[in-house]
Amino acid sequence: MYDQHRDTLEQARAAIAGRGHWSAYPESPSPRVHGEGAAERGKAAFESYLGKPFPLEQAGGTGAWIGAERSPYGIDLGVTYPEPIAEELIAAASAALPAWRDAGPEARALVCAEIIQRLHRRSFEIAHAVQHTSGQPFVMAFQAGGPHAQDRALEAVAYGLEAMTSSAASARWEKPAKGEPLVMTKRFTVVPRGVAVVIGCNTFPTWNAYPALFASLVTGNPVIVKPHPRAILPLAITVLVAREVLAEAGFDPALVSLAAEEGQGLAATLATHPRVRIVDFTGSTEFGDWLERNARQALVHTEKAGVNAVVVDSTDSWRGMLANLAFSLSLYSGQMCTAPQNIFVPAAGVETDEGHKSFEEVAEGLAAAVGRLLGDDARAVELTGAIVNPDVLARVEGAGELGEVVLASRAIRHPSFPDAVVRTPAIVRVHASADDVYGREHFGPVSFLIPTGSTGESLDLLRRTVKVRGALTASVYSTSPRVLDDAERAALDAGVNLSCNLTGGVYVNQSAAFSDYHGTGANPAATASLTDPGYVAGRFHVVQSRHPVREVLDELRS
Amino acid sequence: MYDQHRDTLEQARAAIAGRGHWSAYPESPSPRVHGEGAAERGKAAFESYLGKPFPLEQAGGTGAWIGAERSPYGIDLGVTYPEPIAEELIAAASAALPAWRDAGPEARALVCAEIIQRLHRRSFEIAHAVQHTSGQPFVMAFQAGGPHAQDRALEAVAYGLEAMTSSAASARWEKPAKGEPLVMTKRFTVVPRGVAVVIGCNTFPTWNAYPALFASLVTGNPVIVKPHPRAILPLAITVLVAREVLAEAGFDPALVSLAAEEGQGLAATLATHPRVRIVDFTGSTEFGDWLERNARQALVHTEKAGVNAVVVDSTDSWRGMLANLAFSLSLYSGQMCTAPQNIFVPAAGVETDEGHKSFEEVAEGLAAAVGRLLGDDARAVELTGAIVNPDVLARVEGAGELGEVVLASRAIRHPSFPDAVVRTPAIVRVHASADDVYGREHFGPVSFLIPTGSTGESLDLLRRTVKVRGALTASVYSTSPRVLDDAERAALDAGVNLSCNLTGGVYVNQSAAFSDYHGTGANPAATASLTDPGYVAGRFHVVQSRHPVREVLDELRS
Repeated sequence: MYDQHRDTLEQARAAIAGRGHWSAYPESPSPRVHGEGAAERGKAAFESYLGKPFPLEQAGGTGAWIGAERSPYGIDLGVTYPEPIAEELIAAASAALPAWRDAGPEARALVCAEIIQRLHRRSFEIAHAVQHTSGQPFVMAFQAGGPHAQDRALEAVAYGLEAMTSSAASARWEKPAKGEPLVMTKRFTVVPRGVAVVIGCNTFPTWNAYPALFASLVTGNPVIVKPHPRAILPLAITVLVAREVLAEAGFDPALVSLAAEEGQGLAATLATHPRVRIVDFTGSTEFGDWLERNARQALVHTEKAGVNAVVVDSTDSWRGMLANLAFSLSLYSGQMCTAPQNIFVPAAGVETDEGHKSFEEVAEGLAAAVGRLLGDDARAVELTGAIVNPDVLARVEGAGELGEVVLASRAIRHPSFPDAVVRTPAIVRVHASADDVYGREHFGPVSFLIPTGSTGESLDLLRRTVKVRGALTASVYSTSPRVLDDAERAALDAGVNLSCNLTGGVYVNQSAAFSDYHGTGANPAATASLTDPGYVAGRFHVVQSRHPVREVLDELRS
Repeated sequence: MYDQHRDTLEQARAAIAGRGHWSAYPESPSPRVHGEGAAERGKAAFESYLGKPFPLEQAGGTGAWIGAERSPYGIDLGVTYPEPIAEELIAAASAALPAWRDAGPEARALVCAEIIQRLHRRSFEIAHAVQHTSGQPFVMAFQAGGPHAQDRALEAVAYGLEAMTSSAASARWEKPAKGEPLVMTKRFTVVPRGVAVVIGCNTFPTWNAYPALFASLVTGNPVIVKPHPRAILPLAITVLVAREVLAEAGFDPALVSLAAEEGQGLAATLATHPRVRIVDFTGSTEFGDWLERNARQALVHTEKAGVNAVVVDSTDSWRGMLANLAFSLSLYSGQMCTAPQNIFVPAAGVETDEGHKSFEEVAEGLAAAVGRLLGDDARAVELTGAIVNPDVLARVEGAGELGEVVLASRAIRHPSFPDAVVRTPAIVRVHASADDVYGREHFGPVSFLIPTGSTGESLDLLRRTVKVRGALTASVYSTSPRVLDDAERAALDAGVNLSCNLTGGVYVNQSAAFSDYHGTGANPAATASLTDPGYVAGRFHVVQSRHPVREVLDELRS
């Protein structure tokens, strides 16, 4: 049925080994890629959900329909979802497990590839759903919520398949012995860990949930998807598609189910249920830590907050550096777990291709670069998107109290969505001793410029803050090979991925599936990478059986 | 320096993929393998340690020398070891980490292979140390404590190397873009999780510690070895050899250190230290569960107790079955985590190649088979070894109170060691409803014969007891393909490795490195297999750095 996916999976396996550039799903929203009318049909499909019960037929509910999503662009979505009964979803998932386990790794991988392919065909529909739950600008919602998330999904499938098939599924064991050899046949069966729960986040509902969803599913585990109460629709569509494919392939659709809520603590209930054996979470450090402490019966993977750092030492592209940093701070109003927060700059200034720049010039240069990038409101909103929720809004509005304002945040009126909440980034100067301020995460469009005694001190502060609070990204600008080496060593010590001298079209916030690791697991921001062997390995076990080969013994005896 | 190990590592990697028969270290103690005089030199080396401070030069101690090992064969060893200061061992291990990390996966694997090779050359010396701490009979101590443990060590190195090198260490990433492609070079560095602690057990001091020791070491983690207070010497020799090789290879010997104690709770102190990031434990369910609950800062792998099950349905080799079971119950007096405990037999009896046998005939047949196997005291002790500690002795002496005695345990006087504590197995009949008795582990020479309503009920009891209490092995005897299929399904559901119709020279207690998985991780007896991808994956992370390729951009621009 899904034989066309074999080649895709082979390529994906080659890609995770080689880690060069590869993508299975084109990121361009152009009609040349998706066909004429695809954009319009996707928009219409999204709009058809609004103000109605979502068309998900799923057992294990109370019968009530719930949901209170409101777009950061100022629209009530009015979509409702079946209110689940946790116990019943878990029971249905458990009952679906054995047949999925028995299907084996290859069949599961092919079914997963088909689900992802169908999600790809719905990229426009999902893009609108992501835009109007996360507040991302449309093109970003299309790319990050669609093809990039699909690539991350396929990457997780490839890692799972690789891990499950790296050893033989059967073997003949023949041990020389006195008289006659001992001969056994052995069978090795992948068994899933058990029911998995994926807890989605508000800002990247699909991108951050797909790796876990597909890593668990391909390794044989039924998955209950628990979206953030503000970002249900993108995952509801995902669950719908997954169930459709599973049913067509002859499996119980209860292998993937939706656990929607308005925020009554369903995540904690599910995550600590004795029969839930895997929990994947993206979100706050506070709840992530709680899960790690309390979901003791489960394998828990978390991606939490961090204090991403930039160390500016020197540059051979002053304008490139400022433009690149300005873009990283502005993209989706800094509401990315990968966006820079702490920018360490020597108080004595830095050398550049345009001469020495004082600390003040760096600060003014960066503020001006952001100002230029976001100078035109209509174009600015296509970069910043909208503010995802009131907590982020409160943080950016209070940023001025944290230090000396280098660049004040500005409210922008969205030309198409008058009720959208749009804010440009605030940049605040704080003293290197104020690690009570910059040493914790300020998720959203708030960053800090921190004067240091030297680049050596900057790297020490990077090392220290990341070790304590975690980070998903770090970045360094330097023309000195020695400083770049020191930065690499600091990044290894702190366990954070490092980008060097980004002055062109690659940004520190971006990580490319199949090539860049997202997170490392080596600092408190995350327990594993999306995706590395550690992310998939604990999701399954191998159970063996062995039988003596009698015929051989009998032959030898005769 | 260690280039000769490249080929061994290649073969080991092929073996873990193919899982046929392979071994790097010959298991035979014959002089034809080890050379004339090797046995005598090994014995002399062992004896040279007795009654003296062990020749381990290691910083981080109180200056006191401790140790109170007494051989189960009735000899006080009188060896003393440096009393460690936990904080100092951890600090020394931490300081040694960066250079070991920077050496990279291949160099670490070669050093590990050299350590294992040198341990192999000391197999006789280690065999005596294992015999006189665990109570194993000599040949078993040689094989399980020497070559088999060394094979398991190499297997762990191979898994670690495979996991660390499955993706490229560097890559060129070139993404087509408007105008000019985006080009980056990327480097991917394996970083260890941190200081590891291996907590050894009394019965298999080397076999159960080596996989953890080498899995952590090859992935870049310094290892503190904390032996069982009654079984220090085999691991002290191991640590000595490891430090010798590390120092010769130019590394800090603090990468492997010994934390000896007489039983003051050092394991708990080490395992919960904030800087300890990996804990491997073999031993009781009680302390294993405690570690899982309390060593929250670490990756914790435990191998605990279980209730290993045998289901007898029918057989085409009545005598083969009885002889095989009798051997499994008698080997090392059942003091193996893999020894059968619960033997489920239909109350109505079973069909065999010698006709129908009633439940009573099965019981009598098994008792008689054990009696024959252990009839000659001088030969019996070479199979049973000695009782490892007073707890096991108390259990076997109290076995008669647990049900109806089918075979009473017998005390044997060891011909060479008059103070050795030797006991033959006890077999007790208990009702299927007495799962308060057979549903928990009775480590040592105590097994239960349990009459059931049918083989179906036997398999249900296997499934239920293993799910609740765990098991490392399960075994079934049947001539019916349907029953064998049902047994395989029960084993998959319970997550336990299954052996079918063992009537010859392979025993359920035995697992062959590179082919058989020891434990599964899928039931409460263990968190992972020795060795599977899940056992090594969490011990390291990958940290990346990326740099734009400027030259290319500049060329394209010109």
